[in-house]
Amino acid sequence: MLIDRSVRDILAAFSSSNPTPGGGSASALASAPGTSLLIMVAGLPKTRSGAEAERAALATATPTLVDLRDRLTAAIDDDTAAYDRVVAAYKLPKATPDEQQARKDAIQQALRAATDVPLAVVRWSASALTVAETVAANGNASAASDVGVATALLRAGLQGARLNVEINLASVKDEAYVAETRRALQELSAARAGSSS
Amino acid sequence: MLIDRSVRDILAAFSSSNPTPGGGSASALASAPGTSLLIMVAGLPKTRSGAEAERAALATATPTLVDLRDRLTAAIDDDTAAYDRVVAAYKLPKATPDEQQARKDAIQQALRAATDVPLAVVRWSASALTVAETVAANGNASAASDVGVATALLRAGLQGARLNVEINLASVKDEAYVAETRRALQELSAARAGSSS
Repeated sequence: MLIDRSVRDILAAFSSSNPTPGGGSASALASAPGTSLLIMVAGLPKTRSGAEAERAALATATPTLVDLRDRLTAAIDDDTAAYDRVVAAYKLPKATPDEQQARKDAIQQALRAATDVPLAVVRWSASALTVAETVAANGNASAASDVGVATALLRAGLQGARLNVEINLASVKDEAYVAETRRALQELSAARAGSSS
Repeated sequence: MLIDRSVRDILAAFSSSNPTPGGGSASALASAPGTSLLIMVAGLPKTRSGAEAERAALATATPTLVDLRDRLTAAIDDDTAAYDRVVAAYKLPKATPDEQQARKDAIQQALRAATDVPLAVVRWSASALTVAETVAANGNASAASDVGVATALLRAGLQGARLNVEINLASVKDEAYVAETRRALQELSAARAGSSS
């Protein structure tokens, strides 16, 4: 798995001209440390003013952030696995009409799965950005730059994942799936635009 | 070194409430895969239209990108090491006037070093963003989303590193150093604003 490899090694893998890992995994790899920094700030001994309500808000935020970090971490590998299946489907035999149909179906199924992964990364990054507001409002002000870095990384991860949803979606033929996915992306954008961070 | 540890492990380190690794290392960790994705696109067998000039432009971009990726990768550890020295300086003895002066000097020296690292990350991220324009203009259009993800990651890394420069600079007393660093930040911002990406 990519996440069991060293940082040095994963950077070499991104640099290679192999199709994976690519931008989808890199987007999850931006959002995962962004979420990790929020966990760090939420866990600092000092809160913003020391008020009990701040400690309680941060204690509530932490398990949500840990869950999001773990999902985003898994997505680093899931995106690569999903795209590898797209590449494999394109390599299926296409000598007979039956093979051609089977290959076409396999490609379409793999493309939808490869769209679902970055769509989830968009969703989880958006969720982490919402929790970031709680961390910013209640966390130790001396860690404000860490919250700022976390927000920048999560926005980049969200934006990168969205680009991957869109590029995969461009090859999906299932119109209902395309419409549903576009609707989900728009809802997530609207939710972010309505947020204060 | 952090970069020899697994991705899973480094995410746990960012999540812990220890002062390092923090936002500075995370910023370098965003820009390094951003640069890696550009190296990947520049190295793809196909260029935008197949023109020889495109291949030549990408071949020229690659060694610059590899150098920037390696510097940004090293900065993941350098930022943590520099901030560890700030923390160590604050723990120096301060019982006598001599000790107080030595501690103060050590803190100031460590703070300047801890400002230089993210300032370099700002500079290298800005350089990679400039090269990203060459990759976007000449690289395989089917990898456009990878260039888009790279750009998003590099902007996040640049922005995060800038936040780290600013927070460390707020504690630096050397006015000439502060003025020079602010001037460098402004020049880098002006260069980015004048760029088309």
